[in-house]
Amino acid sequence: MSGHDAVEVISAKRDGGVLSDSQIDWVVDAYTRGDVADEQMSALAMAILLNGMEQPEIARWTRAMIASGERMDFSSLSRPTADKHSTGGVGDKITLPLAPLVAACGVAVPQLSGRGLGHTGGTLDKLESIRGWRAALSNEEMMSQLESVGAVICAAGDGLAPADKKLYALRDVTGTVEAIPLIASSIMSKKIAEGTGALVLDVKVGTGAFMKDVDRARELAETMVALGTDAGVHTVALLTDMSTPLGYTAGNAIEVAESVRVLEGGGPDDVVELTLALAREMLAGAGRDDVDPADKLADGSAMDAWRAMISAQDGDPDAPLPEAKEAHVVSAPRSGVLTRLDAMAVGLAAWRLGAGRARKEDPVQAGAGVVWHARPGDPVREGEPLLTLLTDEPARFERALASLEGGYDIGEADEAPDSPLVIDRIG
Amino acid sequence: MSGHDAVEVISAKRDGGVLSDSQIDWVVDAYTRGDVADEQMSALAMAILLNGMEQPEIARWTRAMIASGERMDFSSLSRPTADKHSTGGVGDKITLPLAPLVAACGVAVPQLSGRGLGHTGGTLDKLESIRGWRAALSNEEMMSQLESVGAVICAAGDGLAPADKKLYALRDVTGTVEAIPLIASSIMSKKIAEGTGALVLDVKVGTGAFMKDVDRARELAETMVALGTDAGVHTVALLTDMSTPLGYTAGNAIEVAESVRVLEGGGPDDVVELTLALAREMLAGAGRDDVDPADKLADGSAMDAWRAMISAQDGDPDAPLPEAKEAHVVSAPRSGVLTRLDAMAVGLAAWRLGAGRARKEDPVQAGAGVVWHARPGDPVREGEPLLTLLTDEPARFERALASLEGGYDIGEADEAPDSPLVIDRIG
Repeated sequence: MSGHDAVEVISAKRDGGVLSDSQIDWVVDAYTRGDVADEQMSALAMAILLNGMEQPEIARWTRAMIASGERMDFSSLSRPTADKHSTGGVGDKITLPLAPLVAACGVAVPQLSGRGLGHTGGTLDKLESIRGWRAALSNEEMMSQLESVGAVICAAGDGLAPADKKLYALRDVTGTVEAIPLIASSIMSKKIAEGTGALVLDVKVGTGAFMKDVDRARELAETMVALGTDAGVHTVALLTDMSTPLGYTAGNAIEVAESVRVLEGGGPDDVVELTLALAREMLAGAGRDDVDPADKLADGSAMDAWRAMISAQDGDPDAPLPEAKEAHVVSAPRSGVLTRLDAMAVGLAAWRLGAGRARKEDPVQAGAGVVWHARPGDPVREGEPLLTLLTDEPARFERALASLEGGYDIGEADEAPDSPLVIDRIG
Repeated sequence: MSGHDAVEVISAKRDGGVLSDSQIDWVVDAYTRGDVADEQMSALAMAILLNGMEQPEIARWTRAMIASGERMDFSSLSRPTADKHSTGGVGDKITLPLAPLVAACGVAVPQLSGRGLGHTGGTLDKLESIRGWRAALSNEEMMSQLESVGAVICAAGDGLAPADKKLYALRDVTGTVEAIPLIASSIMSKKIAEGTGALVLDVKVGTGAFMKDVDRARELAETMVALGTDAGVHTVALLTDMSTPLGYTAGNAIEVAESVRVLEGGGPDDVVELTLALAREMLAGAGRDDVDPADKLADGSAMDAWRAMISAQDGDPDAPLPEAKEAHVVSAPRSGVLTRLDAMAVGLAAWRLGAGRARKEDPVQAGAGVVWHARPGDPVREGEPLLTLLTDEPARFERALASLEGGYDIGEADEAPDSPLVIDRIG
């Protein structure tokens, strides 16, 4: 007998109170077991969203979610571990070059990842466009690959933070996704349970991100850094711009191809910049800031790690990537300089072309997506290709084109924004 | 296709917006049909509780709840109709003398009532202590009895405002009972659907009432009066004191006996005062303020109406009332004047003695309850009976006595409160 009941806990938060450790432990455990009903947890989630939580409450909530499942332990590895989490953006393929790059620098990357839902793509969806590659690994396979290759990107098992899995599905249908305490504890419970020694958070801000507003993004970042630190994980966060999509591609196979170009020493400047910035933070967090990751891109060792990582999960790094059956080119309506390319518009278009899913059971198209031929600041010429839309189903072009309406501007060179990609660092 | 979905409606209220008529109509209907899930409605209820609703939203919500079921129509009766609703108090037997009294004055009283839950008793529970009396009537029986006797107190059928029935059960387990817009629309949807022409609301304030605070009670009263008026029902509210329990009894059969004493021309002053005050409001609302209800108590015609009302529902008004098997007397610890008798303490004691129920499927004991032998302002003498506790199960005495600890004070005459029973009138 804990002495708690759901109405008591809900009422305490409803009335603006601070939940006790015992109330939090009880309600998270009872919800996971089914003794607190969905309709009770959703009322509590709404009360948390509207009345907030103090940092010690969020820390306890996170601990209770971790305690609902298993916790991994990489302390037996011969190298330190570091991981990265992005809050989700358009064209955000950074994990793909980043994980092998950091592995090439001597730090193991145990990245448990997810599939995409909505307009921001999922890392596993992207990797699944590589022939043969499989996302599901046993804990033993993961450990062995971390030791041999140094990098794993795989699906999070059901054993990690099952309370979060159940709660996230509930929040999704009850208008309670937007609560910062619940977002922070959801992300951090999984990352702490995953057992990484260091963690870098890429908190996106802008039209294409979940957080449109820099103040809320900073609040989320600070909350998560405090949670990680509290749990003994060396945690920092970068606030990065997501008003413009990353690189020149948003989709699955086309983002893999772009990532491979980065690992070959080329690729878009912004993707390279962000990959290196995050790699440096991961290395510093793991105590290896003596290594410069730019060297590992240049000397091909990051590419070697990529090939080993893909092969270890039964993928063929040399297989041709799938291509969409149909393409539709949008030409520049006039000459000038691209002054704006809206991340949300591009993300929605890619999603509508089939690169993303509306429901978690939907399939995605490996070849679908959007390629843009200019980034803000680049010159464009009337009648030349500005965007290429890719899909297997041409019926999708119309709605994708509609989402791009008003999604870009062409003007004069001095109108192009000169905003930094990394806005701030917290930690 | 309404074009609405649950997350959209929840998010609108979560973000402090005003719900549109179309959103309200859709969500109430969809919830009643099961297309909006309990966990979605509870999140919305919490958002309404914390962010409020404007009066037009509450009016629309109430209309949507009425539209979820049938609506009664008493316009074919030869006399006007008036009803009363109490928000619930300890010892609140007022409906029992009031309904026949108003009927005796020429106004029909179609009172659809409920069973008690928690420490405030239910009118149907009280009447069921009368041998043979039955609460369930068909609509035809109700109409016929209203025409012949002029007063009916019976159970509300499942046809009235089924949305409210479902929503109330949900609010009860999700910490969302306390939302004034939802309390007001719950009460008023049933009373408006019931089809009464005039309505008097007895909004209780004090320790034994749901509303502890006069400002919140006034807000609730004003909200409900506006809803009734908006629906064409002549509605007024009295704010009445519930810091002291009404009369000298709290239970079932013992409250019936006290009500009969009022109908005989006697009974406690406060019960008589409140019965007459509410009767006058009901008569005025029904256009019959030419009749003085005090005359109808004095000349026995209210008692005649009571006997006819009980008999019409197969009750025997002459049958002896059930008595509890066991009694425990609490003596006054010293001599002086009773300066306080706390309604909540008495209500909890009566409930723990078996007069009320914890879950809606529990039975109640007809004879259980509390009798107090003095009211605030009355002299008491050390060692003489102050309270009598009644139950069929003596094991219940201990917890009932515990709830009376600190529930009364004995002091000097000038310490007794002189607060009015009717605090305010709204409408």
